Amino acid sequence: MLGIGVLGCGRIGAMHAANIAAHPRAHVAAVYDINPAAAQAVSDETGAPVMASAAEVFTSPDVDAVLIATATDTHADLLEQAIAAGKPVLCEKPIDLSLARVDRCAAAIAHTTLPVQIGFVRRFDPGHRAVFEAVRDGTIGELHQLIITSRDPGFPPEAYLEKSGGILRDMTIHDFDMARYILGQEPTRVFAVGSRLIAPNLMNALDDEDTITVVMTTASGKQAILINSREATYGYDQRVEAFGSLGMAVSENRRPHHMVLSGSTFTDHAAPLLNFFIERYREAFDAEIDAFVDAVENGSPVGVSYNDGRQALVLAEAALKSLQDGRIVDVSEIG
Amino acid sequence: MLGIGVLGCGRIGAMHAANIAAHPRAHVAAVYDINPAAAQAVSDETGAPVMASAAEVFTSPDVDAVLIATATDTHADLLEQAIAAGKPVLCEKPIDLSLARVDRCAAAIAHTTLPVQIGFVRRFDPGHRAVFEAVRDGTIGELHQLIITSRDPGFPPEAYLEKSGGILRDMTIHDFDMARYILGQEPTRVFAVGSRLIAPNLMNALDDEDTITVVMTTASGKQAILINSREATYGYDQRVEAFGSLGMAVSENRRPHHMVLSGSTFTDHAAPLLNFFIERYREAFDAEIDAFVDAVENGSPVGVSYNDGRQALVLAEAALKSLQDGRIVDVSEIG
Amino acid sequence: MLGIGVLGCGRIGAMHAANIAAHPRAHVAAVYDINPAAAQAVSDETGAPVMASAAEVFTSPDVDAVLIATATDTHADLLEQAIAAGKPVLCEKPIDLSLARVDRCAAAIAHTTLPVQIGFVRRFDPGHRAVFEAVRDGTIGELHQLIITSRDPGFPPEAYLEKSGGILRDMTIHDFDMARYILGQEPTRVFAVGSRLIAPNLMNALDDEDTITVVMTTASGKQAILINSREATYGYDQRVEAFGSLGMAVSENRRPHHMVLSGSTFTDHAAPLLNFFIERYREAFDAEIDAFVDAVENGSPVGVSYNDGRQALVLAEAALKSLQDGRIVDVSEIG
Amino acid sequence: MLGIGVLGCGRIGAMHAANIAAHPRAHVAAVYDINPAAAQAVSDETGAPVMASAAEVFTSPDVDAVLIATATDTHADLLEQAIAAGKPVLCEKPIDLSLARVDRCAAAIAHTTLPVQIGFVRRFDPGHRAVFEAVRDGTIGELHQLIITSRDPGFPPEAYLEKSGGILRDMTIHDFDMARYILGQEPTRVFAVGSRLIAPNLMNALDDEDTITVVMTTASGKQAILINSREATYGYDQRVEAFGSLGMAVSENRRPHHMVLSGSTFTDHAAPLLNFFIERYREAFDAEIDAFVDAVENGSPVGVSYNDGRQALVLAEAALKSLQDGRIVDVSEIG
Repeated sequence: MLGIGVLGCGRIGAMHAANIAAHPRAHVAAVYDINPAAAQAVSDETGAPVMASAAEVFTSPDVDAVLIATATDTHADLLEQAIAAGKPVLCEKPIDLSLARVDRCAAAIAHTTLPVQIGFVRRFDPGHRAVFEAVRDGTIGELHQLIITSRDPGFPPEAYLEKSGGILRDMTIHDFDMARYILGQEPTRVFAVGSRLIAPNLMNALDDEDTITVVMTTASGKQAILINSREATYGYDQRVEAFGSLGMAVSENRRPHHMVLSGSTFTDHAAPLLNFFIERYREAFDAEIDAFVDAVENGSPVGVSYNDGRQALVLAEAALKSLQDGRIVDVSEIG
Repeated sequence: MLGIGVLGCGRIGAMHAANIAAHPRAHVAAVYDINPAAAQAVSDETGAPVMASAAEVFTSPDVDAVLIATATDTHADLLEQAIAAGKPVLCEKPIDLSLARVDRCAAAIAHTTLPVQIGFVRRFDPGHRAVFEAVRDGTIGELHQLIITSRDPGFPPEAYLEKSGGILRDMTIHDFDMARYILGQEPTRVFAVGSRLIAPNLMNALDDEDTITVVMTTASGKQAILINSREATYGYDQRVEAFGSLGMAVSENRRPHHMVLSGSTFTDHAAPLLNFFIERYREAFDAEIDAFVDAVENGSPVGVSYNDGRQALVLAEAALKSLQDGRIVDVSEIG
Repeated sequence: MLGIGVLGCGRIGAMHAANIAAHPRAHVAAVYDINPAAAQAVSDETGAPVMASAAEVFTSPDVDAVLIATATDTHADLLEQAIAAGKPVLCEKPIDLSLARVDRCAAAIAHTTLPVQIGFVRRFDPGHRAVFEAVRDGTIGELHQLIITSRDPGFPPEAYLEKSGGILRDMTIHDFDMARYILGQEPTRVFAVGSRLIAPNLMNALDDEDTITVVMTTASGKQAILINSREATYGYDQRVEAFGSLGMAVSENRRPHHMVLSGSTFTDHAAPLLNFFIERYREAFDAEIDAFVDAVENGSPVGVSYNDGRQALVLAEAALKSLQDGRIVDVSEIG
Repeated sequence: MLGIGVLGCGRIGAMHAANIAAHPRAHVAAVYDINPAAAQAVSDETGAPVMASAAEVFTSPDVDAVLIATATDTHADLLEQAIAAGKPVLCEKPIDLSLARVDRCAAAIAHTTLPVQIGFVRRFDPGHRAVFEAVRDGTIGELHQLIITSRDPGFPPEAYLEKSGGILRDMTIHDFDMARYILGQEPTRVFAVGSRLIAPNLMNALDDEDTITVVMTTASGKQAILINSREATYGYDQRVEAFGSLGMAVSENRRPHHMVLSGSTFTDHAAPLLNFFIERYREAFDAEIDAFVDAVENGSPVGVSYNDGRQALVLAEAALKSLQDGRIVDVSEIG
């Protein structure tokens, strides 16, 4: 049983802790949060001891690996400390909102052979993964166009938006990663348009967008199209369409149940989509822990590497520059 | 161009006349109806001359074949007269409500080699036909269970019900034929239950049912289940499911368009089903004419034989006896 | 935390034990199996102590309630003993294969006010439950026809079939319960046909059927149609269709993921169905434990009562008699 | 009965002629093609006289209106001549490949009040139209994102590509029109990427693209995304998705029948998509003629105006410039 120390006991950290507790080959070995009550709540659920500091987690002999789910601006520091303490790390995305900080962290941990996995959980979704496999194994031939639709079910709180780093770094970043995962090659050019349609006043105040389309191309001409909205009334809209020379693979939306209704004015009326990511990506969150446990125990490759975390941020930066300058941006301009 | 005389210019006759008029290898050569205005209306649409009697149609040199779409109780007489006059016949179902009359008609035309096709149009539906083919070509292996759902979109007028011969002879008869078509063998035992749920008073007055389930088995144990209702609010529900040792083929419902809507309480809300048979079986009605023209011109087998018309009625009789006696009925009891 | 003693550590017992262990308000307090190795394996997973006998479980102060998942022929004895020992019971279906034994057990526990819940897990499936609710709340108006399709993904082992009590008592029994659940009234007449299509030699040897259709009616004329097969190549086919005066509610099949593929000869090719009941009814098994915990802790009604367990068996007996006698059977003939 | 003269009897002209012939309020009054055999073939089907020149059609007293389906480079000339002759015109798209020529033609016919309808047939598709209505009537609230997927089922012949004016003017032009139709406002900025993935050598030779993505925005920030490919193995992929503040409306693909198959490795395997535009947009072609007949007979607005034809070309020009310059193009740069 791999003992995992959980750093950060907010909504996502608590969910990870519960998943680890239920995992057949892992258990929660320690919990920490700057808010002791949050740590205590997770301790009550999992039986894991509350620690007084992250440092205490890193030095605990019961802790074989750590999961970092703290505030974004602490990720890189904690990641460096964990590696320094010899602990494998599963770190929530993003590594940091600053590419410079991400690169300093990369330098600081460059020597390590310990597993470092970044939390792009969607790679582990069974449907999205089946698309990935249909591309990789040639089922759809050569990939030509990749369309990723990602719309949140409800507008986020203002407090969240103020610290998110903007829609490209907080929301589209999942789609940048998904695009890289399925393309199997790096986008080289990025074009983005953003609109302020849902909450224009707030978006103006924050200089952010609530509705995004990004088009990326690779050197060989593959096209990736990312379609985002902060608010879809019908639920959490999460689709991936891969179109290739031999066919098409589509990961479709999911609902909480499969009852459909017909009446005098309609047929096959289904439930709203699963809402929200904890429900929609439940199996994926489990599989993410699985992959991390495998990496630590068996030395198998982590599902999502540090560099994957970096490159998604590079694309977000390129898209932001495209938005700001109103032009196509070469990814090489960013880093 | 095959000249077809149309006998009966009611709703179905008029529809057939229009289809014949638009057919590349056929035209309407004459029209007749006991109601001259109805005949005139079809004449106006098609340019075909109105004839004063069925006999005049049968003797017209311009008439190569006839379509009988008159009142049910005239079908057998007209069919006999047409054959006597040397005209191939496409006769709407049912041949007659009386099995004895059907058998007398069979005897009267026994000598003929002229094509006689009965109007079980659903055999020509592209979806149902694809199920048939998936059974015949072994795609689903040995057929084990066949489920036919057939529900009308709205309760028929009382005047219609009074003359229909009852739900088994007027509505389920299509499903008896579809079952025989797909089973590829004769049902030997029939069990039926009927309920009076939609219009119980009227059903009691007519001693008829508005909701029917029939279970039939073949000698080899294949099971066919027919599910009928006189009124489905969501449209004309027409499905065929064939389950076999290697898989399942299902002919699904059809809608007038493919727009689906999602909103705050639902997703993928589709339009009501195509309503009614003229719309739903439009391609099938065309293909039925096609098959008849082929039979007349090329001697290919008619799509639905006189015996098919008879056997569907036999099953309806068996089901009626099952309803009346509250027991399983051997088809051999009927004839 | 409710301490639940698990009796029977085979496939189903072990699954229940894992679900109880992961349940936020329950834990496994003791395990027992006639095969000590099976009990030990569940003990290893859950940390619960292995007990030497069922009696030891019933008398353990740590055991607040028991789950009976032993061989069918021990259910009634253990249920009586558990109630005698003052323990609430969640008992896997069927209570017993003999209606007489079920009724003796009923008499033996007649005095108790302890919760006794029978394991008809499908009532807890979110899709099936949504159909139930669409019927109960009037969304589809008056229920007219209920069609339950239930096909297993693979033929069971011969050893299982020898002790199952026959397809009606072991497989269709779930559908008898589902029919009663959704109808909201008792079927009064039962008709069944059985065929031996998949493994005819074995079925002949066992005098059992592998392919079943049952039609039941209620006093008011509602029709329920149960469609079973022991083997569907495409997975575990589990559908419920409720057709009523205002519309239709259908609980559709489920797949392990939502990727669909299109190629040069097909579109929207989806994965085989979830296979088998542990996967397909995962949420339902959780909700079943939930309902039992609620019943024990809060006195809420059990989701499925002892009488529900009895009545499903009565319908199975009626269907068996229908098969044997080749006639409609009045449920009142059975008991 | 409106007498329509058909100019151009190639594949599309012949199809239109057949539709006109079957139309209840119109007939083919004359046919003309530079290839007399082609004209004769349509004459044989419709009974309409073959004319020796377009001029003869324009002056025929039997011709109340004309349909122009000749080679693209003759459209504008014929349109001017028809208007000069006082005949209402239904002209196939595009008006011309040159915006200058389109504008000269506009000037030449500026004085007329005769109906001039351009053949953007997809506006008449029942599914796409239902999306349009869901946007117009507020069902999905304010439109935020519009995604139009349009992929041809097979790569066109080289001879066609050489004269098509390039993918943006020949294929995407339908989507530019669909975008304008559903947006209900003019796109103001256009960005396009093109790739040569299917037939790179031929595309290089022609300096054309086979895979296209276009992103357009309106002044208010609505986003339209057009996704094209010259070759989808699974059929003619034609989808429209409108996402708005209250929900989403999607016009889905269509198949020739509704049979779905399940087997040991898959479920719900459907037929390839309807292939090609004559099949897929059959109802739309009928409705297009309907709208034109209405415009001529009743003075109702044409379904697609001359200006609609022009504006689609403007967007194609803007997209081409975007491709060539690798930048966002303001539509005002074009005209």
